[in-house]
Order: sequence, then C-alpha cells, then structure tokens
Amino acid sequence: MVVATQSLETLCINSIRFLAVDGVDKAKSGHPGLPMGAAPMAFTLWDKFMRFNPKNPNWVNRDRFVLSAGHGSMLQYALLHLYGYDSVSIDDLKQFRQWGSKTPGHPENFETKGIEVTTGPLGQGICNGVGLAMAEAHMAAVFNKPDCTLIDQYTYVILGDGCNMEGVSGEACSLAGHLGLGKLIALYDDNHISIDGDTTVSFTEDVGKRFEAYGWQVLVVPDGDTNTEAIAAAIEQAKAETGKPTLIKVRTTIGYGSPNRAGTAGIHGAALGPDENAATRKNLGWEHEPFVVPADAKAHFAKAVERGAAAEAEWNKTWETYKGKYPEEAARFERQTNYKLPEGWEKCLPTYSPGDKALATRKTSEITLNAIAEAVPELVGGSADLTHSNLTYLECSTDFQKDAYAGRNLRFGVREHGMAAIVNGIYLHKTGLIPFGATFLVFVDYMRGALRLSALAETQAIFVLTHDSVALGEDGPTHQPVETIASLRAMPNLLTFRPADGNETSGAYKVAIERRTTSSVMAMSRQGLPQLEGSSIEGVERGAYIIDGDLDLPDIILIGTGSEVQLCIEAAKKLREDGTKVRVISMPCMRLFEQQDDDYKNAILPKATKKRLVVEALTSFGWHKYIGDEGDMISVDRFGASAPGGIIMEKFGFTVDNVVAQAKKVLG
Amino acid sequence: MVVATQSLETLCINSIRFLAVDGVDKAKSGHPGLPMGAAPMAFTLWDKFMRFNPKNPNWVNRDRFVLSAGHGSMLQYALLHLYGYDSVSIDDLKQFRQWGSKTPGHPENFETKGIEVTTGPLGQGICNGVGLAMAEAHMAAVFNKPDCTLIDQYTYVILGDGCNMEGVSGEACSLAGHLGLGKLIALYDDNHISIDGDTTVSFTEDVGKRFEAYGWQVLVVPDGDTNTEAIAAAIEQAKAETGKPTLIKVRTTIGYGSPNRAGTAGIHGAALGPDENAATRKNLGWEHEPFVVPADAKAHFAKAVERGAAAEAEWNKTWETYKGKYPEEAARFERQTNYKLPEGWEKCLPTYSPGDKALATRKTSEITLNAIAEAVPELVGGSADLTHSNLTYLECSTDFQKDAYAGRNLRFGVREHGMAAIVNGIYLHKTGLIPFGATFLVFVDYMRGALRLSALAETQAIFVLTHDSVALGEDGPTHQPVETIASLRAMPNLLTFRPADGNETSGAYKVAIERRTTSSVMAMSRQGLPQLEGSSIEGVERGAYIIDGDLDLPDIILIGTGSEVQLCIEAAKKLREDGTKVRVISMPCMRLFEQQDDDYKNAILPKATKKRLVVEALTSFGWHKYIGDEGDMISVDRFGASAPGGIIMEKFGFTVDNVVAQAKKVLG
Repeated sequence: MVVATQSLETLCINSIRFLAVDGVDKAKSGHPGLPMGAAPMAFTLWDKFMRFNPKNPNWVNRDRFVLSAGHGSMLQYALLHLYGYDSVSIDDLKQFRQWGSKTPGHPENFETKGIEVTTGPLGQGICNGVGLAMAEAHMAAVFNKPDCTLIDQYTYVILGDGCNMEGVSGEACSLAGHLGLGKLIALYDDNHISIDGDTTVSFTEDVGKRFEAYGWQVLVVPDGDTNTEAIAAAIEQAKAETGKPTLIKVRTTIGYGSPNRAGTAGIHGAALGPDENAATRKNLGWEHEPFVVPADAKAHFAKAVERGAAAEAEWNKTWETYKGKYPEEAARFERQTNYKLPEGWEKCLPTYSPGDKALATRKTSEITLNAIAEAVPELVGGSADLTHSNLTYLECSTDFQKDAYAGRNLRFGVREHGMAAIVNGIYLHKTGLIPFGATFLVFVDYMRGALRLSALAETQAIFVLTHDSVALGEDGPTHQPVETIASLRAMPNLLTFRPADGNETSGAYKVAIERRTTSSVMAMSRQGLPQLEGSSIEGVERGAYIIDGDLDLPDIILIGTGSEVQLCIEAAKKLREDGTKVRVISMPCMRLFEQQDDDYKNAILPKATKKRLVVEALTSFGWHKYIGDEGDMISVDRFGASAPGGIIMEKFGFTVDNVVAQAKKVLG
Repeated sequence: MVVATQSLETLCINSIRFLAVDGVDKAKSGHPGLPMGAAPMAFTLWDKFMRFNPKNPNWVNRDRFVLSAGHGSMLQYALLHLYGYDSVSIDDLKQFRQWGSKTPGHPENFETKGIEVTTGPLGQGICNGVGLAMAEAHMAAVFNKPDCTLIDQYTYVILGDGCNMEGVSGEACSLAGHLGLGKLIALYDDNHISIDGDTTVSFTEDVGKRFEAYGWQVLVVPDGDTNTEAIAAAIEQAKAETGKPTLIKVRTTIGYGSPNRAGTAGIHGAALGPDENAATRKNLGWEHEPFVVPADAKAHFAKAVERGAAAEAEWNKTWETYKGKYPEEAARFERQTNYKLPEGWEKCLPTYSPGDKALATRKTSEITLNAIAEAVPELVGGSADLTHSNLTYLECSTDFQKDAYAGRNLRFGVREHGMAAIVNGIYLHKTGLIPFGATFLVFVDYMRGALRLSALAETQAIFVLTHDSVALGEDGPTHQPVETIASLRAMPNLLTFRPADGNETSGAYKVAIERRTTSSVMAMSRQGLPQLEGSSIEGVERGAYIIDGDLDLPDIILIGTGSEVQLCIEAAKKLREDGTKVRVISMPCMRLFEQQDDDYKNAILPKATKKRLVVEALTSFGWHKYIGDEGDMISVDRFGASAPGGIIMEKFGFTVDNVVAQAKKVLG
C-alpha cells in the first residue's frame, strides 16, 4: 500500500497512529495495536461528534469519553494532545510510562486532565460509562427545565474483546439496557484478537445478540479500518435512538498498517521496534519524523479549540438565563458542582444517649442515610438487591428508573461488581454527586476489582456493607466475613469503618461525606447493639478514642471495634472491681487513627502500656501493630459456622467473661 | 385449591416442599420460597433422570447436581434425605442452621455427603457446574475406550435470577457455550422474584436470548409449577443435544402453595410462621404433621436406593472389564481417583545452584509446571488470556477445546472470576484432577468471590499469579499489587507463596501439589531474580527458614520474601563488615510458618532478637507480628506508579544501600 498524497482525514488518523507508535517505541513498552486499529473510529468520534472544550476539561456539559480498553492509553494521550489539551504536550508523549510523567501506562484521571476515568483493568471503563450516563440522566432530570437545558451530553466508550469477556461489563450493560440509557454509545473495537491470539480460542459467542438481549441497539460497521463514513453514520443512528444505549460493533484490524504484525496478538502489547516501525511508516506512506505532526493535520485538529470555546460560550448563555429564571436550582447547581456541601448539613446527623434503644448499626445507618439524604440532595445510591437487608432505601426519594431519572434510589440488581464500577462512574461525572452502593460485607469480594479503582482513582464512593461478622448467624461461613475487613484495611486510600453504635455511625458518615476524594466502607452489624456511654462523632473522626477510662496510664488497654466494643466496656467494669486500671479504646477506623499526629496517638495508646487486648470478631491479621509484643487478641482465625449468631459469638469466645479471662491472662 | 387425594407425584413433590417449609419454620430462619417453587423440577430431575447411588455418594460416575441458588438449601437437604442418603437424617433436617449440624444455612460440600459444591454466593454454582462438566469431558476423553465407557455422566444445575444477574455466571456460561459442553443441563428457576421484589425493578433482559448468544440450546417450560411432563420432556431434549449445553427456563411461582405470600419477595428468605404454614398446608391439602413424610411417598423415594445400587453395580462390571483390558489406564484411574500422586513424582522438581542463570519466578514457575505436568497427568489448567505473560502453557499437552477434551491447557479468556469458579468445579469433580488458573496477581481481586470458596470448600486449586509487585513497572498502579498479598494472607485455609528463586518455586509447587484439600496462590515475579545460595525446597515447606546466617543469636534479623530476599542477603554481607551478626530469613509462606511448632518458630525467629527489619515491596499491613515492638519495615504503603520497574524499586527504597541504612537505624 503506497499512498502518494493522503487526504486530510487520513493524515489526521495517521497522526494519531504514529504518535501512539512512536510513544510506545520510545518507551519500549506499551500497547500500539489498539491505537493503530481504533484510530479511525476515535478520530471520527472526536472530530465529528464529541463536544468538549480542550481549554476547560472540566466544562460541566462536555461529552464524556472513556477508553475502556485502557491499555491503548496512547490513543487517548494522542487525542488529548492533538485536540489541544494543555495536559498532554508533545514532551509528555515522549515521557510515556516514565517516572512522574503525565502519561502513565494506563489512563489515570488523577494524573492527567481530560482523562475522565481510570482504566486498564478490563471491563471497568464500560461500567464507568454506564455510571456516567446514569449521572447525566439524573442531573438532567433534576436540573433541566422545559425552556432551559443545562445538562445534555453523551457518554462515548471504546471497548475491546477483553472488556466484553469480563462479567462485570455484562452486569452493567444489562442494567444500562434496563434503564434505557439512550445517551450511552459504546464503540466495540471488534478486532478478533486478544493476548492469547485469535478470539476463536475462547470467545466465540455472538456479542451483538447478547447486547440485544440486554435491550441495546446494536449496529455493525464491517469495515472500520477505512470506512469512516460508515462509522459516522452509525454514531448518528446511535444518537437517534434515544430510548436505548447503542453498541456499535466496529470490525477493525489490530495494529492496522504494520505489514508483518497487523491482525496478530504480536502487535497488542509490544513496541514495534525500529524495523517494523520503519516498515509501517513505509506501508502507510508516513514520511514524518517521530513525534512530528504534519502541519495540515495540526491545523485541522486545532479547530477543536475554537469549536470547544464556542460550545462552552453557548452553554454559558444558557447558564446565565437559568440563573435568572431559576435562582434556587441554580444555587444548588453551583454549590453541588463546585463540591460544596449544603451549609450546616452535619446538623442532620442523629445522636444517641445510653438510654436510647439498642439498634443494629445497619439500622442506625438507615436512619443516618435518610437524614443525610434530606440534607444533601446529591446523595444517590442503592443496593445490589438487598435493599431491605442493607436498609438503604431513601424514603425522601423515588426509584431511579427509565423515564424517572430524578429518583435517587438506584436498583442495581444482584450485580455487586457492576454496582461498584457504576458508582465510580457516577462520582467521576464530577457534578458533585455522592454515590453509594450496598451489599453484604462478605460480598465485597465480588466487587473488589472496582473497589480498588474507587480507592486508586480518588473517588468518593460510600459502600454500605452490612452483616459484618460471624454474628450474622445462620447463613453460615459463605456469608460471614472473617478476613474481609482486614483485606479492606490493607487497601491504600480507603477508609474502613466499623462503628460500635449510633453515634459512631453518624461519625463514620460525617467523615465519608466530607472527604470528597476518598472512598469509605461502612461495615454494619446485623444484630442490635446498645447505645454506648462515651461514644461520639468526634471520636470517630480521629479513628480511635478512649470510650471508657481516663488519661491516667492504665494497667491494660482493651481495644474493640463495632459490636465488640460493648464487651470491652462490660469487661472493664469487672476488671476494675479488682482495682485494675483499664482503658477501653474504640477504634472504628484504623486508617484515620494512623493519620493522627504522634501526640494524639501516644495519648490514646501509650507505648508504656504494653498489656493490651484486642477484641474483634474477625481475623487477627493486621492487628499486631496495636497488640504489640505483650498483648493478645480474641479473634476469629478460621471460617465461621452456621448457627444462631448469639451462639456463634459465645462459641468463639466473644463474651464478657472471656474478655475478662483473657485480659487477666495478658496482665499475667 | 383443595386436593382430596393427591397423585403419588404430587405427594412426593409436597413431601419435598413441606420438609423445606418445616425445616425453615423450626429454625425460624432460612429460605422456603425456592424449595416450594422448584420442588416439581427437582423431583422430576432426581426421580426420572439423575443417576446416583445414595449409599455411595462418591461413586465416580454419578450425575452431579448443583443447587446454584444455594439459599434454597432445604430443597437439597430434603432431596438427600428422601432419596436415602445417610448423611441427612430427619433429625438433621430438624437441626437446620444449628451449631454443629449437617444442614448448615447454605450447602457445604465439606459438611454434608452428597453435596457436591458449596453454594450460597450467587452465580458460583453454575460456574462450578461448568467446571464439573469440563472435568467430566476431560476424564471421558482421557479414559474412555470405544468398547468401554468409564465416565459418562451429566451435570445438572438449578439456578435462579440472582445467579443469572451475576457477571461470573455470564463468564462461565459463555465459555461453556464455546466449549460445547453438551452434558451440562441447567434448569433456570424463572420466578421473576428477587429480594428487592419483582425482577422488573432491575432485570428485564432476555436471558434466553443471551444464552443463545453464548451458543447454548434454550428451552422453555411455561408452566413449571404443575407440568412435570413438560419439564421431563425438556430434560430429554437437553440430553438429546450433545453439542451444546442447555438452559431450560422453567417458569415457576416462588413459594408455590403459600396462599398469602406465593409469588412475592416475602416468601424468599423468611420462615412462614405458624399461621401461613397452616394456611399453606390447608391450601395444598397437606394433612401430615411437621417432618412427617407419607408412607406412599417414602416407599417411592426409597426405590432410588435400589436403582442406585444397580447403576453402580452395572458400572462396576464395566470397571472390571476395563481393568482387564486396559491395565495401565486402569491403574492410573484408580490411583488418581483415590487421590494418590504418582510415586516419586517430586523427583521432577527442578533445583538450582547459585551459579545458574537469573530467572523470573514466573519463568521458574513455567519450568516447574511443565515438569510436574509430565509427572502428574492430572494437572490441568491455564490462564485468563495471559498465557504468555503468566507462562503457564503445558508443552506436553494440547488445548482443551470442543471435540478435543483430552487437552490439558484450558483457555479461559479474559474471565478471571469465571476461571476461579470453574477451577473449583474441576477439583470438586473429585476424580483427582489438580486444576490451576492464572492471571496477573492484582487481578485476583476480580476472582476473590470464587477464591474464597476455593479456601472454604477445601479445594485444591492452584492460582498462578504473576507480576507480583510494583517491580512490574510501566503498566502502573492499576496493575501493581500492593495490598493484594496481605489480603490473601488474611484468608483462612489458603497458602500464599512468594518464592525468592527457582528452588523456592519448586518448594511452593511441592506443597501445593501435595496438599489435597488446600488451595495455593503462587505470587511470581515479572523480573529476573538470581538463584540464591541457601534457598531450598525444604525451607519452603516450613514456611520460613534461615537462608543466610546461622543459629547463633543474631543482632538483627532481616526478613524478606520473593524478590526482596536477595536485597536482604546483599545487605547482610555489608552489615557483617562491621561485625554485626545478621540473620536473613526467607519467608515464602507466612501461614506455613505459623503452622510449625513453637520450637521451630523460636529457633528461626528468637524472641530475644527484637531488632528486626522486614523487606517486602508490598504493604506493611499484616507484618507487625514479625516486626515486633522494636523492628521496622521497608514497604509500599501507597499505590504504585508507572515507570520502568528498576526505577520504581529504587524510588521506593528497595536497594541494598537502603536496607543497610534502615537496618542500622533499627540497630540504633
């Protein structure tokens, strides 16, 4: 294939291709195959359809773009650079995958302006796309007026075979079909190649038919390497269908242009190297030096800056009108999208006194969530089909359903992983929404792939995870968390709360709502817990605090969390009968405590007091930092059992008497 | 509905129903809705189709039954009891969900004979079913002879809406369609109800069409509450289709028979209680006391014992013939299905000397896996589309594909969660197969729901998880494990290995192959590691050992795992220059070390030596048990970064110089 003169379009598409090829070759690491094959669809999408302002990547009504096949990150970096985003200079492209660069191996929203979501782990991006489209639908339903449209944008996703093999994408796409998210448009880079070779090795299902079964419109572009008109026509048709999301199967050749490796797994994840790079340049008639974009192409791409400024200026006019006509809604819109919470919102948080009724923390969670929902209208969320077990229904609102997108109760179905990825997407719409998802704590294992991205991508997601220990009882070991909370405490940038009562529940939510770039897990009890003397919101905010005892150096420190704090307090009473000086620490959030200054930490847990007993009906793993060399722990270092919860707790040693006995042992 | 005299069939079906109802009512806990609705299909299946011998639940050629909707456990317990399994007496049914009973809240293969797999977490059972069918296909392909069929059995699964909403089931069912597993027959209890109410709330996709897209045969029984003939006809038709798995959509009414709660979420997971129980008895014309099975029904069910004995006797004749004609294959069959490893198999394990070439442990893993594959023919497995990154291809065999089921290389596609659940199913076929699955370590988060069941259900699964730290480099934080290994170490009954070199790799596999009821994780490096002086298979078998130094009480102990052990050894050399007595501990498996006796533990890690430094390029979470009050650690307590691996390791302090510096700090 020799191309004498290239059309402007080809020039632009090849500009994308070769920035990707050269970036990967310079780094000697990365994935050139996808950018080379998907460049035509990406160019068509960004050039003819995507509405964005490169000079203001945060413009609220921009179209959202997600590269679900995140390994093709150079495609997205090339697009950002060519279309005029200041976040990705040509030097940044040359620094692809280097220490401290703006162009890491996979797209990271927290590193590079213009990247909406963090992708790489396959399947996540398309689910984030579902969340973005849900957020758009909700914001539009809440704020738009018949004569004034503030929010009206599309979510575009490019996904690959890998994304489509992952179950998580099936979960979210099934829900997207159910919800009729007409403004979600996914381009499936259907190149028949995954890392192990041709997809015939393991993936021969009819993807289009599956998406039709989900309720999507499915379109096919058989010649996606070359026929940009067909791609454009398909996107038009997708936009015309307002009641369903659309999947456009775009048949492409991975590594298009590489004479020896196009259409093979060999081009997926390895640099071309000098020889194949040269051969590809020759093959595509590309005579430019590495990282050089031809002037004609440059000029064409540059138009996006003007186009984007004009689009935003137009929107600003609407916004001015809106502010004049709907000052109340405008004030909320401004507040929310600027990540300000309603003034004094925290006054809604319930507090409790020791005389108040014993309640499960899943119940105090319900009370708190509902109180917050009234004070903080940007709180939206729901459960993965356990609404009445997790107790997460927001009574002040309705269901979020097709044609009823103003509802704030999300119905995820039995789709925990999809839920968490959607929740991430809702947050990453960056219009101030605070999303939550709920299931049983043990099933956080189903959604951990997405939860890790909640933490990494600096989202503010709240996961309400009830039934937090073996005390849940009869459902047995498949349903009983043991190692689960330890596995969450180990994760960077995630706050794991296990409140002991109502006040601590309020404290946990206070932190979770106020931290706008940190996700939180709420581990809540199934069983009733008494309202404790000494529990407080402020205590929770410091991670751990003295709930019983004073600042005098104690003989022994009992440390408990959640349902076991009451045992420590009761045991302390008994231990004091002998004159033992006992301090009880409630530690609802280990990480928050670790973030305190040394003075506070030493005051609470003085190094001099080496006699310590930790009581938590979960694994001991991760506790020895606080147990120390001379302490001990009452823990559950095995899987649970099926029996009434009270009996299990007794059999496993979670009784006041046993706490007293073990404490005496520690005291020696 | 008043029934004067019931047909024998109705009597039997109602016997199942009321054992379930009464069991749940007595426990005041459990899920009556599914058993009541699914009793007709379960009875039809067990009575007319299932081939099993109640008096020998381990008969190798039995049909396998999986209740994927595990919350309906009373259905399965009732069936086991009625059909004559000794494992579930009427007293056991009365002990449903009680401490120490054989009838826990969800079916557990390790508690109750006749239960094939542990279910409860939704979607897992159907995936286990895919694994069971793959194991059947493989065993049949390996052992059957044209004139002598040893293995020829069906896998039947009952699954519900919840299972079908979970992405994991989509992953496995897509693969099952690809593989054309004709002997997998799934009955979908299509009752339109999940915990949150009618499935119209969140689940309106066309499930049948989706399964057709996967390549399944899909049949529909519209009147599954009453039309057992239609159910039987559908199962016949399913068996007739030998080239595809079959999904039979059986439309049922949840809680069938309950006059006030049938067809509602209210019957899903709560006891009927005295009033509704009485009303249901009246409604279905059931005049028997709780837990009483009418004599006619009893007599009918009892026939299964004879039927089963006859079926096994028939098979035993075939087996005798087989033994005579094919002594070599018979010997292997007998050995393997009795869980004996080939004598002297461990001689195949490669060993290395310090002069040998530096190799990544993913590479020594490949060498070891291939050596074992030759010596241990029951080893089967593969990767989730990362075969050539995980290095798991067994060169001595071929691909396991449709019409080529003798192959031992499984091609899972990008389906980590489905893979792990399938691997569990393959093991739980209990014909001695040792299955493994592979992906990047960080993506264990995608499969954790199934991995937890590997551990809980006492399976022997091996997970080869490569790219084990930030040292993997450019792919960046989405791909870099940090908290991952801690989260695995926290899980009961799971062995997590992080070998330092080739000898330790062999040691890890030795343990993993020999432990027949424990699953193992192999965390393997991407980067090359030197063969260490002092590393050994025996050391790994004890979890931790002195790799450098002697039994004299040291001044400081350096503890490393995996790629950081070499740093400890080099640092020790430098520290000794000042006369410091240094011991280096390699700890490839924390849990194995904890299982050693106190003498060994104290010899390796003497309490008297409080100066300790742990070096691991992962989170410090979980290490303080060994760090102690006076020790320290070089760790990664943040997410990683995108850059060449060597640079990241240097930036994060994983250099010999820094180990020396931190050790000196600890020494004070």
